[in-house]
Amino acid sequence: MLTLDKVYHASYVLKNVIRATDMIHAPNMSVDAEIYLKCENLQVTGSFKVRGAYYKISQLNEEEKKRGVIACSAGNHAQGVALAATKNHIKSLICLPDGAPISKVEATKRYGADVCLVKGVYDDAYQRALELKEEKGYTFIHPFNDEDVIAGQGTIGLEILEQIPDVDAVIVPIGGGGLISGLAFAIKSLNPNIKIYGVQASGAPSMLRSIEHDQIQTLKHVSTIADGIAVKEPGCNTFEICKKYVDEIVTVTDDEISTAILTLIEQQKMVAEGAGAVSLAAALFHKVPIQGKKVVCVLSGGNIDVTILSRVISRGLLKAGRSADLTIELLDKPGQLEGVSGIIARLGGNVVAVHHDRASEGSDINACCLHIVMETRDHEHIQEIRTALMDAGYQLKI
Amino acid sequence: MLTLDKVYHASYVLKNVIRATDMIHAPNMSVDAEIYLKCENLQVTGSFKVRGAYYKISQLNEEEKKRGVIACSAGNHAQGVALAATKNHIKSLICLPDGAPISKVEATKRYGADVCLVKGVYDDAYQRALELKEEKGYTFIHPFNDEDVIAGQGTIGLEILEQIPDVDAVIVPIGGGGLISGLAFAIKSLNPNIKIYGVQASGAPSMLRSIEHDQIQTLKHVSTIADGIAVKEPGCNTFEICKKYVDEIVTVTDDEISTAILTLIEQQKMVAEGAGAVSLAAALFHKVPIQGKKVVCVLSGGNIDVTILSRVISRGLLKAGRSADLTIELLDKPGQLEGVSGIIARLGGNVVAVHHDRASEGSDINACCLHIVMETRDHEHIQEIRTALMDAGYQLKI
Repeated sequence: MLTLDKVYHASYVLKNVIRATDMIHAPNMSVDAEIYLKCENLQVTGSFKVRGAYYKISQLNEEEKKRGVIACSAGNHAQGVALAATKNHIKSLICLPDGAPISKVEATKRYGADVCLVKGVYDDAYQRALELKEEKGYTFIHPFNDEDVIAGQGTIGLEILEQIPDVDAVIVPIGGGGLISGLAFAIKSLNPNIKIYGVQASGAPSMLRSIEHDQIQTLKHVSTIADGIAVKEPGCNTFEICKKYVDEIVTVTDDEISTAILTLIEQQKMVAEGAGAVSLAAALFHKVPIQGKKVVCVLSGGNIDVTILSRVISRGLLKAGRSADLTIELLDKPGQLEGVSGIIARLGGNVVAVHHDRASEGSDINACCLHIVMETRDHEHIQEIRTALMDAGYQLKI
Repeated sequence: MLTLDKVYHASYVLKNVIRATDMIHAPNMSVDAEIYLKCENLQVTGSFKVRGAYYKISQLNEEEKKRGVIACSAGNHAQGVALAATKNHIKSLICLPDGAPISKVEATKRYGADVCLVKGVYDDAYQRALELKEEKGYTFIHPFNDEDVIAGQGTIGLEILEQIPDVDAVIVPIGGGGLISGLAFAIKSLNPNIKIYGVQASGAPSMLRSIEHDQIQTLKHVSTIADGIAVKEPGCNTFEICKKYVDEIVTVTDDEISTAILTLIEQQKMVAEGAGAVSLAAALFHKVPIQGKKVVCVLSGGNIDVTILSRVISRGLLKAGRSADLTIELLDKPGQLEGVSGIIARLGGNVVAVHHDRASEGSDINACCLHIVMETRDHEHIQEIRTALMDAGYQLKI
């Protein structure tokens, strides 16, 4: 059974292994609430997962430790288990789908794990991990539905109460539910008045659906940029704990998550991955009732692929109206680009890319298409530029 | 005269105004030294500049305060002065060149300053600021060559000694020299055994050249992605202090700075601007003798334009061999793309962009060019793929 004792014990075991991560005040957020960020993106391995993995592994008996551990993950759990095993001086084998990003595979190896690349997707890697567990006698480390793992994640709850004793509400990402289960259990056990809000990606709302139906639901497919919480089915343990201790679960869209990631970069100079930023997204987009409150958003991790980061930045700028694409149909004659760019410059738009295309299907044989990417102030500014171009007789495509 | 008293006084005045920023251990850096990051990128306004600006403004007399302050900057100094003036309940006017990025102009306004956009470049804005100072009687806040400003920046030195009392060396960015002057003065006054290394961008080495010539040198032009330290001429005060207290000044290239920025994002989940990352770049690329030492790198700021951030990420990935461009001359017939992509896939490269170009100048009339961007593990991996393609008879351009 999960007890507060166990969470305190985990906290003791984890001392000098993990970082009691920084709690950073974020006064510039456009939210009517006092926002603090619990920065598990600054945790060793770049996510909270190492807490649960380390505590779980530390509690294995000598025989189990000798045989080693196995896990299946293409992400933070892999790195958490790898480091936790290495620090406990035991062997770890991580099964990953062979399409996993090179950077994640390399990071997992760097933390000392052996890596087994399995042809196929996550489910294939998971099946292979279970087979290997049977064949070789490894202990399987579940990413969330394990009492010791949950107790390990609960230590974040203790740290939050230590850092902000008078916190009113804590906003927490939910994938399989391990993080929020430990955190909510620890905090509610000590102070039931503190609100705990869970956040899922709108493309992977498995815990929310399960709670709505009062029984575990399995999603057919999940789709979100927050790959760390793209989980089809919550655990039976985490489901029961969430039912009991979580006040409300809400969802955020990929666009909202992108905006939160961009906000963290610009306002807080912090990198969060999609899963890590959903808590702030929920606050920024008024998904939770936190007006006038002192609120902690848990940034659960920061392991975002840098190429994805570039794409998220572009998407966030577009959504905020700080970047815009224009497609303009022109007569293919000299001076047209000058005319268009003159209007944009006069109104303070900053052109960053131009693509001139003569052979667009469907366009007049004498016409050509001009694609322009420009930096803008906001949506109003974009509209101003569009209107000026149309007033000058240019044909804008939508 | 700059005294330790003044730095301590600044430290007292700044309490509850600025953040005593986090000192974060960075154990994963590939350097044989214990690296700590002094995170002034997490400072309010996103850079250390607010320290000096606030202290300077707080020391103005009532008459001067009533008239208000003026400054010229397109960057961190603008935001620092704006916030410092607003917190002191006085007016500020910031002159910016009219080509300044929209995001910087907006941020300066948000901190409460009036903004005067001046047609031209920085020097034009600077001239206009001096004119306005004469006309209106504003106090001009110099970005670095001012004793109170220097004393304010020196408070970072006191914090470093508080946070890491047994530090062996501190690595500090140099633009005009305000930051390193205050910091070196404070630290050397308390413990002359601690080494202070300054870092400039190789495209803007004004302080280094001045010290080499033992008199102030003015560079004709400067060029670096680290816009925060692109300064043509050091101050006379900062020059004298650097001569006396700085052990060595080194330079880093734009590629080295890009790698440092990327390393901070991936390993530390931190965003630094170019100027802020030069200290880590100097450590990563062995520019300073820190082997086996306990070293603080000052990350002076984090205000990097997100579109530039995207470009820096691309450049850093290329330099590390984690991304590669291939240009291949093909016969324009079916199946060629399949052949090439098959070889790349078999060797574990991950294609992220393809551009197929028929009309390249200089190519055979029947030929076309295939441009491929792919994710790779390292330079060796790229060479492996190039060799395999050439062995299969494909013509690779350089």
